[in-house]
Amino acid sequence: MTRERVIVIGGDAAGMSAASQAKRQRPDLDIVAFERGGHTSYSACGMPYYVGALIDEADELIARTPDGFRKQGIDARIFHEVIAIDTRNRTVTVRRLQHGDTITEPYDQLVIATGATPVTPNLPGADAAGIFTLSILQDGITLRETVDRERPKSAVVVGGGYIGLEVAEALVIRGLDVTMIEALPEVLNILDPDMAALVSQATRDFGVHLFLNEPVIGFETRNGRAVAVTTANRTVEADLIVVGIGVRPNTALAAAAGVPLGVTGGIKVDRRMRTEVDGVWAAGDCVESTHLVSGQPVHVALGTVANKQGRILGINLGGGYQEFPGVLGTAITKIGEVEIARTGLNEREAQKAGLAYVVGKVSGTSRAGYYPHAGMITIKVLAENPSGRMLGAQIVGTEGAGKRIDTFATAIQARLTVDEFQYYDLSYAPPFSPVWDTPLIAARKAVEALRGR
Amino acid sequence: MTRERVIVIGGDAAGMSAASQAKRQRPDLDIVAFERGGHTSYSACGMPYYVGALIDEADELIARTPDGFRKQGIDARIFHEVIAIDTRNRTVTVRRLQHGDTITEPYDQLVIATGATPVTPNLPGADAAGIFTLSILQDGITLRETVDRERPKSAVVVGGGYIGLEVAEALVIRGLDVTMIEALPEVLNILDPDMAALVSQATRDFGVHLFLNEPVIGFETRNGRAVAVTTANRTVEADLIVVGIGVRPNTALAAAAGVPLGVTGGIKVDRRMRTEVDGVWAAGDCVESTHLVSGQPVHVALGTVANKQGRILGINLGGGYQEFPGVLGTAITKIGEVEIARTGLNEREAQKAGLAYVVGKVSGTSRAGYYPHAGMITIKVLAENPSGRMLGAQIVGTEGAGKRIDTFATAIQARLTVDEFQYYDLSYAPPFSPVWDTPLIAARKAVEALRGR
Repeated sequence: MTRERVIVIGGDAAGMSAASQAKRQRPDLDIVAFERGGHTSYSACGMPYYVGALIDEADELIARTPDGFRKQGIDARIFHEVIAIDTRNRTVTVRRLQHGDTITEPYDQLVIATGATPVTPNLPGADAAGIFTLSILQDGITLRETVDRERPKSAVVVGGGYIGLEVAEALVIRGLDVTMIEALPEVLNILDPDMAALVSQATRDFGVHLFLNEPVIGFETRNGRAVAVTTANRTVEADLIVVGIGVRPNTALAAAAGVPLGVTGGIKVDRRMRTEVDGVWAAGDCVESTHLVSGQPVHVALGTVANKQGRILGINLGGGYQEFPGVLGTAITKIGEVEIARTGLNEREAQKAGLAYVVGKVSGTSRAGYYPHAGMITIKVLAENPSGRMLGAQIVGTEGAGKRIDTFATAIQARLTVDEFQYYDLSYAPPFSPVWDTPLIAARKAVEALRGR
Repeated sequence: MTRERVIVIGGDAAGMSAASQAKRQRPDLDIVAFERGGHTSYSACGMPYYVGALIDEADELIARTPDGFRKQGIDARIFHEVIAIDTRNRTVTVRRLQHGDTITEPYDQLVIATGATPVTPNLPGADAAGIFTLSILQDGITLRETVDRERPKSAVVVGGGYIGLEVAEALVIRGLDVTMIEALPEVLNILDPDMAALVSQATRDFGVHLFLNEPVIGFETRNGRAVAVTTANRTVEADLIVVGIGVRPNTALAAAAGVPLGVTGGIKVDRRMRTEVDGVWAAGDCVESTHLVSGQPVHVALGTVANKQGRILGINLGGGYQEFPGVLGTAITKIGEVEIARTGLNEREAQKAGLAYVVGKVSGTSRAGYYPHAGMITIKVLAENPSGRMLGAQIVGTEGAGKRIDTFATAIQARLTVDEFQYYDLSYAPPFSPVWDTPLIAARKAVEALRGR
């Protein structure tokens, strides 16, 4: 075999974007992708909506099947789990889950895209049956099937992050009586507490019984199956228990092979997505990124980042040149009609980064105040003191509020100051915003705070 | 009287923003505002929605009444028409429309905010009764009253610009059979023809009979009232005729007083909103602005610009310092469910500015493709060749499409290249966008065009 051989570990967003882009750049590459699960290139972010039956078939979440990749000349193999990497001899050891045997495969270039793993609580009963997580597509399929088949009447969702909120929303839509238990003072702690409080309220308004400040201390089981969640204050029985308390980079394989990790636990990569080991690349939820505002290493497990990094990895691996600029941690979600978004640094993160800042915060309407169905929108902006550089923004509001975060993401990534941004030429018509749209007013409030007014 | 005296000519967005901001900066100022109409500080942009009965009372469009201004210490006088300015003696001559007499008032500083005037066609019958325009609030009130009282069954709207489209939408909502006649090949010629064609189609889909490429050649009258619109191809009878074929800066007063105008016909101002005459300021639809991309003078009559310029004028007049950066011509509107937005330069404008460019154009979905009610969105981006600097963007699409223009406006005003922007960290969740949102893909297409792919 004379063709250069690329092995990709992990068949989801980052890995298959890398494979696909590398193949497009260099059709002569021999690319093999190993995926331990049963699906390639699916939208993990879509799983809550599949559980909520807003989407009929799990297939709709799949962007591209192994067959689709084979047509592009990429050998994508599912149920193949890579269990070891030998970077000296450039081979990987692969367990063929459907055959039970193990094979060794050589590579010239290796792409590690092993994603992230849900954090599981180290608590009594936490490994019992009947506790669901949402990580890979099969998890979503299993949860949906359980709801369809068992018709549970109640659920407890442990953890009020994105996934917790989205699953809670889905289960309410499915008619379950849903309780959410969160250890922190508010849900969605990627927002500052004052903004997150709006989300907690929206969660209650959507019909979720919400208990805050209550760390889970254990799970009660019956016949080996979890039937209740216990906190210091209460025990909540439920037909269904879903745990979503965060993820960590899935780096065991890389670490065992001597691929250096960063301080966040993610694989260290340069701006071209190369690890510190020759011939080994990495992208997606398993790597450490650089925050565009703080300049500090961060671990951000988001589909947007995974897709961008995978694509950039593929361009570079295929002989092109592209740098990944870094992350702002821009994210958006919703609960019912309430849209929630953030980008850049929140107060806690700014403090941690040693940045002095002021806050500009404003509540306004999403349309002209007189236009029908004008909803509320609250925006909070952080600006560096005294430079005025925009550090971050958070938004909670109704229809059309959330996507306004992209304007802030662009402003922050372009390193604008609030002084500049406050007079930016944004769009206006009564069905879409007030004449001074809330992003501009939030910036103006920050300017006033900088000037001590 | 020892207090410095400011006279403001024009009581709408620019003038009253200036008055209000100057008063806030310097409460000692003696500020008098003369408005020839019967209302101050109203949302002209809201008039179509008042005509469409989406808004019950015209009062809802008024941000602040003369009484409101008086409470702030600003003497706002309606039905006062300034008919002459004497810049040497620093006086204005004012006709008191309710008394019929004329007074002369001294000023130390003068603010000209006389707005824009609808272009009226120089055609047979064009001055007949029964031809409506929408310029000042009274026009909107008159049109609404006419629809309410006379219950017209049909209407012809002449001109397919913003106002034409918005009025056509309103009249369809009111149950009228609406015909639109446009001289150009597509409606909304602030877009390129390929994008405007989508708007023409949306206009038809909303139920408007649309005739393109048909300049109006006259109006038929009966008993002194216009009853039909005539083109080379047809005569369309209607119970109601509305003309919206553009506006021009209302500068007769300024020009007669020797205040220099620019090449666009608007009053020349510097970045602090000072005219070339000492003690005379101007802002809003009557001034000429500088385009942020082309650097060329333009006349942009939009509420966003008027409000910003008025505020900045007031800050400077009140002893502060603020520069107006210029305009991108960012604008947004809708017809039915179809949202339309633009910012920066379109192809015609880029050519006129002598800028070489490439186009990146893409159609995608406004949500993840599998998410319910995902609508279409088409985005066109212009990038300078070979620098990659973003020059302009145009968007046509459904729910949530339009406000994506603000991301482009920010990117363009920050002078980003498409190369940079294509990997910007924008938000994603299935209810809000695909993982690569259309703005990023449009930028990527432009990058590919730059590289000749």
